Amino acid sequence: MTTEKKDGIVAVGTVGIDTVETPYGKAKEVMGGSGTFFAIAASLLAPVNLVSLVGTDFDRWAEFDRPGLDTEGVKVVDGKTFRWGGKYQENINIRDTLFTELGVIADNRHDVPESYRGCRTVCLANVDPPQQLHVLDSLDAPELVVADTMNFWISSDLENLKKVIVRADVLILNDDEGRQLTGKLNVTDILSDIQAMGPENVVLKKGEHGALLAMGDEYFSVPGYPLQRVVDPTGAGDTFAAGFTAWLHRTGDKSAEAMKTATVYGSALASFCCEDFSTRRLQEISLDEIEARVESFRKLVHFN
Amino acid sequence: MTTEKKDGIVAVGTVGIDTVETPYGKAKEVMGGSGTFFAIAASLLAPVNLVSLVGTDFDRWAEFDRPGLDTEGVKVVDGKTFRWGGKYQENINIRDTLFTELGVIADNRHDVPESYRGCRTVCLANVDPPQQLHVLDSLDAPELVVADTMNFWISSDLENLKKVIVRADVLILNDDEGRQLTGKLNVTDILSDIQAMGPENVVLKKGEHGALLAMGDEYFSVPGYPLQRVVDPTGAGDTFAAGFTAWLHRTGDKSAEAMKTATVYGSALASFCCEDFSTRRLQEISLDEIEARVESFRKLVHFN
Repeated sequence: MTTEKKDGIVAVGTVGIDTVETPYGKAKEVMGGSGTFFAIAASLLAPVNLVSLVGTDFDRWAEFDRPGLDTEGVKVVDGKTFRWGGKYQENINIRDTLFTELGVIADNRHDVPESYRGCRTVCLANVDPPQQLHVLDSLDAPELVVADTMNFWISSDLENLKKVIVRADVLILNDDEGRQLTGKLNVTDILSDIQAMGPENVVLKKGEHGALLAMGDEYFSVPGYPLQRVVDPTGAGDTFAAGFTAWLHRTGDKSAEAMKTATVYGSALASFCCEDFSTRRLQEISLDEIEARVESFRKLVHFN
Repeated sequence: MTTEKKDGIVAVGTVGIDTVETPYGKAKEVMGGSGTFFAIAASLLAPVNLVSLVGTDFDRWAEFDRPGLDTEGVKVVDGKTFRWGGKYQENINIRDTLFTELGVIADNRHDVPESYRGCRTVCLANVDPPQQLHVLDSLDAPELVVADTMNFWISSDLENLKKVIVRADVLILNDDEGRQLTGKLNVTDILSDIQAMGPENVVLKKGEHGALLAMGDEYFSVPGYPLQRVVDPTGAGDTFAAGFTAWLHRTGDKSAEAMKTATVYGSALASFCCEDFSTRRLQEISLDEIEARVESFRKLVHFN
């Protein structure tokens, strides 16, 4: 018997249940986790194969029932699904974590199904660095490695995180995380210090201020989208990584020009993500709407 | 006897002597003040007629000896020239004012020479709102009124500030000031609330994150320029207003398209301003260098 070989992006990340409060309301027990946001958003542009862990209590499979989203790699293990609770302040750029229950993530490994191993694109979303390395090692020969990280791993497991970073073609991180990782304050210093750690391409996400991409010694800037209502920014970073990675996979192009357009697709998807709680907006948007938003970004920065 | 009629921009602002310390060094007793930065920067693009006050101790006239910069409106009065001292933290976005000595600004009025009164463009840079109103009332029929402000006036003289704002075609302010003026946190709310106070066009300056322009219900975004060294940001805001106003005056165009290009010229000049202490970099740049920087901004945001 031979295993069916699957095409597309392999993504590892958490699948969880969130309870989120923002100035616009509260969403209880909704879909969350870096893997969830990544998979739903990326599937809008390219096939995605999700590697994650859920507990036997998980009953939200219908949320993943989308064309191009494969969940063979979402393993069900004894125990509880990851849960996170957070509250955003009136200044929606500031959030407080109310609780984190790791559940099955604490003691189980993210294993990559045989059928995923030939995939040429991988995104290592936010899980701990040893699991990111394990996923990377399980793939035959990925041509594009995108890695995301989080402040928690920079302070708790820098040694393994650096092993991930050195193998990434693209590292995506927040400006705060960039300052923490490099000890630098100036964005050009942050970007060049991270490039010196391995990845030729680095995206610094700046929340409502957009994103700055460094490719070799070239820069590209995308503004924040002037949204009238930021209802819930949870998952916007994972959604950015999804749009970015999926655009590169879809075009099969890793050139500087493709990286720029990918940054805009990431920003466009992230802006939709913020328009409603959880994955609600991502579940309903179409490719036409994404392309219209990309055109809005183009118009937002165009001058004669 | 008839008075010579002068063409160009009328700008009111302070002329002072600054002492500034940043992580890159210290500059003692250098040229400063909103009028100084405005006049030197604007004169790179258009004729500028400066309205300001200095004391009998002022001996820096050579700094103003530039083509297109008229100082008939800089009145010398008994007393001391305005002085300001500030220190920037390691995070250069944060500064502490060490001293402010108003000197002659405290008790004297900014009067507009007869020869300036027919000018069609005026920029009300950072002086107190009653003086901004006095300058505006002294002009025959300005076709373009650009106003700048500062957090201090929002808290201390909102009544007169609102009288300035209602008469402005363009209000330029920092994002912090926008939040203070409107009580709103979301940038689109801040911009529309200010537009409701009078000006159709509002520029929200975001420091290292660039600027966001609202024109009616249209937005335009300019990124921060990725400078390797921000040596001294003092005067960058006044320099932005200078590039913005001078571009509109130079082209004689107040269309939305012109406002966008003006925002880029303002950003380009402001980026030069930060490259050295005081007005040093502005004193040495050429029109070719400004245009090359504008092209860098275009490239920074362009994608296929």
